[in-house]
Amino acid sequence: MAKVNLARGMRDILPSTLRKRRKVIQIIEKVFESFGFEALETPAVERIETLMGKYGDEGNKLIFRILARGKDGEQGKTDLALRYDLTVPLARVAAMNQQLVLPFKRYQIQPVWRADRPQRGRFREFFQCDVDVVGTENILAEAECLTIVHESLVVLGFEAFKIRLNDRKILRAMVEQCGAGEREVAVLVAIDKLDKIGEEGVRKVLLQGEFSIEQVDALFEMLNTGKINGIEAELANLEAIKEMAVAMGVHPDRLVIDFTLARGLDYYTGPVFETIFTDDNIGSISGGGRYDGLIGMFGKKDVPAVGVSLGLERLITIMEERGMLSEDAAVDLWVTVFDADLHKDSLQIAQAFRKSGIRTMVSMRSGKLKKQFKDAHKAGAKWVVVYGSDDKEKGVVLLKNLERGEQYSLPLVEAVQKVLEL
Amino acid sequence: MAKVNLARGMRDILPSTLRKRRKVIQIIEKVFESFGFEALETPAVERIETLMGKYGDEGNKLIFRILARGKDGEQGKTDLALRYDLTVPLARVAAMNQQLVLPFKRYQIQPVWRADRPQRGRFREFFQCDVDVVGTENILAEAECLTIVHESLVVLGFEAFKIRLNDRKILRAMVEQCGAGEREVAVLVAIDKLDKIGEEGVRKVLLQGEFSIEQVDALFEMLNTGKINGIEAELANLEAIKEMAVAMGVHPDRLVIDFTLARGLDYYTGPVFETIFTDDNIGSISGGGRYDGLIGMFGKKDVPAVGVSLGLERLITIMEERGMLSEDAAVDLWVTVFDADLHKDSLQIAQAFRKSGIRTMVSMRSGKLKKQFKDAHKAGAKWVVVYGSDDKEKGVVLLKNLERGEQYSLPLVEAVQKVLEL
Repeated sequence: MAKVNLARGMRDILPSTLRKRRKVIQIIEKVFESFGFEALETPAVERIETLMGKYGDEGNKLIFRILARGKDGEQGKTDLALRYDLTVPLARVAAMNQQLVLPFKRYQIQPVWRADRPQRGRFREFFQCDVDVVGTENILAEAECLTIVHESLVVLGFEAFKIRLNDRKILRAMVEQCGAGEREVAVLVAIDKLDKIGEEGVRKVLLQGEFSIEQVDALFEMLNTGKINGIEAELANLEAIKEMAVAMGVHPDRLVIDFTLARGLDYYTGPVFETIFTDDNIGSISGGGRYDGLIGMFGKKDVPAVGVSLGLERLITIMEERGMLSEDAAVDLWVTVFDADLHKDSLQIAQAFRKSGIRTMVSMRSGKLKKQFKDAHKAGAKWVVVYGSDDKEKGVVLLKNLERGEQYSLPLVEAVQKVLEL
Repeated sequence: MAKVNLARGMRDILPSTLRKRRKVIQIIEKVFESFGFEALETPAVERIETLMGKYGDEGNKLIFRILARGKDGEQGKTDLALRYDLTVPLARVAAMNQQLVLPFKRYQIQPVWRADRPQRGRFREFFQCDVDVVGTENILAEAECLTIVHESLVVLGFEAFKIRLNDRKILRAMVEQCGAGEREVAVLVAIDKLDKIGEEGVRKVLLQGEFSIEQVDALFEMLNTGKINGIEAELANLEAIKEMAVAMGVHPDRLVIDFTLARGLDYYTGPVFETIFTDDNIGSISGGGRYDGLIGMFGKKDVPAVGVSLGLERLITIMEERGMLSEDAAVDLWVTVFDADLHKDSLQIAQAFRKSGIRTMVSMRSGKLKKQFKDAHKAGAKWVVVYGSDDKEKGVVLLKNLERGEQYSLPLVEAVQKVLEL
């Protein structure tokens, strides 16, 4: 017998877990669709050159590479790779499909694969959940992204969260005004850690990074007072985005303009945003921004775009921890097989319930009724049907409610009605 | 600019196509769930040894292999592979999860990957759609598999199809009785071609394969008359399966016992079945059977199982060809932006519709109303809202139905109601 196991960092999603996940995904999709976003699916497998060089050196190493078929493969050559995120495939789709009507508002909820070190609750295959607006510079796109995040979280049952909003151009102005313009990335990376290591920590990092005390002081002067020159246009832009989002129902206290928000990804060019829980230190549960240069890497012309990603796996983890996901059985009703002669009748009875959308099992083991009731209970069925020759004579079925301990002797049509009612 | 393309044999599923696919999948899932089947998802990536040797030599070659990370990868070593079907992962899950309550009735609709030569309408990534019952020898499992196929096809709108039913043991009896017991597979492979090449064709294949004329005559005597010794038990079994399926609503004319049905896969041990359209030569659109030995390959003990696979991609192709899939726009209602001063009002109006589940877009380009109406029409919206200062004064919105050419001037709440009604 071969040793059998999952691949490292992979998981099966068993039915009871999957039912919960699907409920969360359905809720989120309904919000996305209410804003007119459309679902897109891209293949798991991309050409290796489509992915390489898009995620930095660290990212390149984490891409799963697929061996070429035929002779090239024998020499260890790889030509394909597994999808690493949903943004690069979107950019490829946008560049390849000139017929798309712009602005193209798409959402995508699919797995991605990263050869990261697996940790508790972190897998090498995990779902991303992205919303993007391609083809417009209108800041309503930003406002819709923020509102969708807010609306999704509220509908899922969250209250204590905060959306932070900044603009890459404001960050750049700050960096330039403290005389570190040529080392923007290093400053952004340091600022990005403010949440975790505080001002003192960031100061230390910058000083060790050979920034001067004057530069660091100037930087924190700007971060702490908000006094930065020449950012009037960007600030007005952020205020306008906020106003739109508030008009669409975002709670104003939950949306804050925050000059310390940097976001890691290189490709952002304008507004950036991030969402955190204020009652949980799990980290960012949503992030995004405007990236007007990425699609141009694949196509003939630059196409403006803005998007946001919802941390689906983190959300599900937290909802699970907090008991926000109710258990849902796979079965509503269980038809026992009481009398072998009546087996066909039992099957017909089951069918009547199924036709009404009631999820119905028929016992696959004959034998004592008590055991069949136990099976029904184990499967989570709320209802059990018993049918014997007496019932057949009377033209009824015996319907038992396991939760209430009640039972009803009813003609089949009425029994179906009863289950639908309760 | 990098050349940009899909990987060979892969496809993007753009929104309008995806909406149609999802409708089909939802209908099928509802049928599966009505029988108490539960959804399972397994990872795209499996250990290579889990897959190798399960699909024959031809299959082994078509498996996409993933390069190992680290030093082994530099030497071209592969340790992982992409899922090739849904049955082997199910067998792994069943063997690994002893806590599963048996019978475990699971369905699974996920992509699989095969490095096949791509053809028109055939891709290297495609969805499979499987239903299996693990852990029972009760033939109700077979009957449910057949009924689910029948029910799914009927609900999808198909009428002209036939389910063929046979038993591997009957085939084996035939092969043995014509004295070719040691070459069972070769006979089955030949019989499997009866549909395509007819009796003469199969005779030729067998004679070229060095079976004797006597053997071939004996075989066709049995196939044509149905006179086979010692198959009473199996035949009674098939009749019982048919009776159960008919009790669950399968049309008796659509379910035929047919001794010429062989099915290719090696691992079947009992009843086998296949569905074909009687008005289309696209080939099998569903196939399955009992395989009581497969799970034992992964676990400590044999576990009986039976399953059926629905040819989702073929079904969708045919439904598309026959116009059985209605177009569905992504947007119900379009809110124009008539007056820049009222932009926030427009956003609030949109939100009122969204809260009622109406998929609503707000124009992202300002400008002439005529152009915005054109955008709305292009997006497939049935409704357009216009809101100007006059409307604001009157406390109404102007709601236009693009299909009927009607318009209504109504307070917002009533306008939402109107859209929900129609």
